[in-house]
Amino acid sequence: MAFDITKELLENVSELISNQKDTALSELFLDVHHADIAEVLDDLSFDEAVYIIRLLDSETTAEVLLDVDDEVREKIFEQLTAKEIASEIDELDTDDAADVIAELPEERKQEVMQEIDDEEHAKEIVELLRYDENSAGGLMAKELVKVNENWTVLRCVKEMRAQAEEVTRVHSIYVIDDGGKLKGRLSLKDLLMASTRSKIADVYIPNVDFVNVNDAAEDVANVMRKYDLEAIPVVDELGVLVGRITIDDIVEVIKEEADKDYQLAAGITQDVEADDSILVLTKARLPWLFLGLVGGLSAASIMGLFEGAMAKNAVLFMFTPLIAAMAGNVGVQSSAIIVQGLANDGIKGSILKRLLKEISLAMVNGFFLAIFLFIFIWITKENIKLAFAISVSLFSVIIIAGLIGTSIPLFLNKRGIDPAIATGPFITTSNDIFGILIYFSIAKLIIGF
Amino acid sequence: MAFDITKELLENVSELISNQKDTALSELFLDVHHADIAEVLDDLSFDEAVYIIRLLDSETTAEVLLDVDDEVREKIFEQLTAKEIASEIDELDTDDAADVIAELPEERKQEVMQEIDDEEHAKEIVELLRYDENSAGGLMAKELVKVNENWTVLRCVKEMRAQAEEVTRVHSIYVIDDGGKLKGRLSLKDLLMASTRSKIADVYIPNVDFVNVNDAAEDVANVMRKYDLEAIPVVDELGVLVGRITIDDIVEVIKEEADKDYQLAAGITQDVEADDSILVLTKARLPWLFLGLVGGLSAASIMGLFEGAMAKNAVLFMFTPLIAAMAGNVGVQSSAIIVQGLANDGIKGSILKRLLKEISLAMVNGFFLAIFLFIFIWITKENIKLAFAISVSLFSVIIIAGLIGTSIPLFLNKRGIDPAIATGPFITTSNDIFGILIYFSIAKLIIGF
Repeated sequence: MAFDITKELLENVSELISNQKDTALSELFLDVHHADIAEVLDDLSFDEAVYIIRLLDSETTAEVLLDVDDEVREKIFEQLTAKEIASEIDELDTDDAADVIAELPEERKQEVMQEIDDEEHAKEIVELLRYDENSAGGLMAKELVKVNENWTVLRCVKEMRAQAEEVTRVHSIYVIDDGGKLKGRLSLKDLLMASTRSKIADVYIPNVDFVNVNDAAEDVANVMRKYDLEAIPVVDELGVLVGRITIDDIVEVIKEEADKDYQLAAGITQDVEADDSILVLTKARLPWLFLGLVGGLSAASIMGLFEGAMAKNAVLFMFTPLIAAMAGNVGVQSSAIIVQGLANDGIKGSILKRLLKEISLAMVNGFFLAIFLFIFIWITKENIKLAFAISVSLFSVIIIAGLIGTSIPLFLNKRGIDPAIATGPFITTSNDIFGILIYFSIAKLIIGF
Repeated sequence: MAFDITKELLENVSELISNQKDTALSELFLDVHHADIAEVLDDLSFDEAVYIIRLLDSETTAEVLLDVDDEVREKIFEQLTAKEIASEIDELDTDDAADVIAELPEERKQEVMQEIDDEEHAKEIVELLRYDENSAGGLMAKELVKVNENWTVLRCVKEMRAQAEEVTRVHSIYVIDDGGKLKGRLSLKDLLMASTRSKIADVYIPNVDFVNVNDAAEDVANVMRKYDLEAIPVVDELGVLVGRITIDDIVEVIKEEADKDYQLAAGITQDVEADDSILVLTKARLPWLFLGLVGGLSAASIMGLFEGAMAKNAVLFMFTPLIAAMAGNVGVQSSAIIVQGLANDGIKGSILKRLLKEISLAMVNGFFLAIFLFIFIWITKENIKLAFAISVSLFSVIIIAGLIGTSIPLFLNKRGIDPAIATGPFITTSNDIFGILIYFSIAKLIIGF
C-alpha cells in the first residue's frame, strides 16, 4: 500500500522505457502488487504498456492484465502474438482465463487456445466458455480441492497438498462420492484438528450450500450474502461437483449490478466511467436525452391542445414545469424502491397490496404538498378557483405517478426485463407526459375553458 | 437452501406457538440456517418472535438476531431482560456484539454489559464501541489468530489450535513481534506445508496489506477490492495489531453504500425498504418532493417575469417542460458519472480538465439534439426565428446543466459532504430553475420581446 502512483513515477517509467533500461524497470516493479502495476499501465501509452508486459514475467503480468481497464487489455492483446497471450492464460485460474478468452475476437480465440500448453487447463477453459457469463457456470472456477468420502484423513491431507498447489485460496474441502456427486464439505480447521486415522465419511459436514450451474449470477450473490459464504460449490444437473465460486467474484457482481442500476437510473446505458472517451460517453447518454426530447415534444403538443385557455388562464401554463417535475420525482422514488427491493429479493406479498400501499403513500405526500400549493397560489394569485384546480391536479398527478412508478418495474420484472431501466429518464419522461395531460384535463374540468 | 418460507409454514409455526408445542418447534428449526430462521421471525408477530428466541438455544438465536430486520431486533430486545440479551451477546463475535450493543438505548447498554460473563469479551466489546461505525475500527473484530515471530512452527500450530477455537474463520495467521506490532502473515496453506521445526521468522511473508484503525470504511472496501483480499489486519497508530476485517463485512459496506447512493439519486433519504411503514417512507420521500415543489414555484415565478411575451410567443411556453426535463436529465447524467467515479476512487486529473471534458460532451449531445429540435419546430411551426431561438436555448441549457452537474458533486466532495446528495432532486430542481431562466433570457435576446 506504500506504492503511490504519482506523476513523477509515471514520467520516470516512460523515460526508463524509452531508454530501454530493462533492469531498472524490473527492479522498480519488483514486489509491487499486480493491481498497482495495472494502474500504472492504465496511465501509460499502449506501446509503453506492451513493453512492460513483455518485460515482466508472465506469472506477474497475467494478473496485471486482469486488472487493467478492458480497453487497455484489448489494445495490448492486439499487439501480442497468440503464443504470448497463451502463456499469460496458462498462468491464470480457469475462471479468469475463460473471461479473458471470451473477450477475444472469434478467430483469435482459436489461435490462442491451440497455443495453450496445459491440455487439462485448455479443456477446462473450453468447458467454462460454454456457460452464460451471468450464470453460476460463468462465474465459477474449476480449481478446487475435493476429496472422496471413502478416504482417510491421512490420505486426504496428502492428496490435498497436491491439489492445493493449483488452488490459490483453499476455503473448503469438498467431499464427493465415487460418482463425483457433491456430498458435503470439510473445513481446513476441522481437518487440522481431526485424527489422521479417521475416515472422511465420519468427519465431513453433510449440510452444504451449493448452487446449480445455470443459476443466475445475481441469485448466487444473494445466496452467498444471505448465508455469509466465502465460497460455494457449483453442481450440474446430476448433482456432480463441477466448480466453485469465491466471494471476490461475487463482490464484483454486486458492485457491477449496483453500478449498473445506478447508471440506468441516471439515464446512462453501457458500463461507462468518467475517464471513458467522449464517443463512448455520448453513446451511453445521447439515446436517453433523445427520449427526453421526444417526451418534451409530446408534452408541448399536449399543451398545444389547451392553447385556447392561455389568454384567460396564463398562470396555468406557468405551473407546467412544477407538475412535470413532481410527476417525475414521485415516479423515480416509487420505482427506485421497487427496483431495489427486487434486486435484494425483498419484495413480498401481492402486487395489488403493493399498489394499494403506494396509493396510500402518494395520498399522504400528495395531500401535504397540495395543501401547501393551494395556500401559496391562493395568497399570491388571489384566485381560489385556480388555486383549487392546480392543487387538485397536483394531488391526482402524484397518485398516478406513484402508480406508474410502482407498476412499470413490477411489470418489466414479470416479463423478465431488467426493471432498473424503468427508474431513469424512461419513467420521468412518461410521467411528464401523463402528468401534463392529467393536469390540464382536471384543470379544464374545474375551471372550465 | 431447501428451506422455503411459505404461507403454510408460517401458519404452522404460529399454531405451534399458540399451542406451546415446544418440542415440535425445536424440531422444525433443527439444522435450519440462522438466516432462514431470521426470515421466518421477520414475518411473525413480535410476541411470536420473542417466543421462538426464548425457546431456541442462544448459540442459534444470537446469529438469528443478527439477521432479522433492525426493527424486529429492537422490538425483541425490548421484551428480553438484560441478562437474556447478555447471553446472546456472549455467543457473538466481538464486531457483531459491538454493533448490536451500539443499537441499544444508553441505559440498557450498561445493564447488558454488566451481565456479560466473559470479562475479556466484554472488555473487547467496550474497546470496539469507541470507534466510529464507518471506520476500520468500527468494522473490525478482535477475534484473530496471531503468532509471535520467535515461535517455531510446532508451537505455532499448538497455540493456533487453541486460538482457532474462538475464531469462526481462519483466513490468515498474523505474525507479530514481542511488542505486538504487525510484522507479516502466514497462510494456513503455508503452515500446512512447512516443516514443524522451522522458526516463524523464517517462513512468514513480511509483505502484508493492512489498514489503520481510523481509515474510512469505504477506503477499506476499496483496498480489499483492489487487492482481492478476504481479510485484512487493522493496526493502531503505533502499528500494533488490534483487529481484523473480513470480506463479508465489506460486502455489506459495498452493498449499503451502493443502495444509499441509488436512493439519494432517486430522492429518498434514510435507509428505507419497500416493506417499511408509510410513515417511515413519507419521512424519507416528502422532503425531496417539497424541494421539487419549491423549485417548481421558482420556475413559475421566473416564467411570470416573461408573461408579457405570452400573447405573441405562446409556443415558447409550450416548450418549458421540455427544457426543464433536458436540463434535469443532463444534470443527473453528469453528476452520476462523477459520483460513481468518486466512490470508486476513479477520478483522476484536475477539475478544470474534467469540466472541459463535460463541456465538450455537452456540446456534442447538445448539437445533435438542438439540430433535431430546430428542424422539428421549423417544419411544424413554420417559424425559423422561433425554431432558432428555442434550439439555441436548448443547446446553452444543456451545456450549463452539464457544468452544474459536474461541479456540484466535485465541490461537495471537496467540502467533505457526500456528493451523492447532488444526483437526485437537488440537481434536477436547480437545473429546472436555471434551465428555464436561461431559456427565456436567450429566447428574449433572439426574438426580442
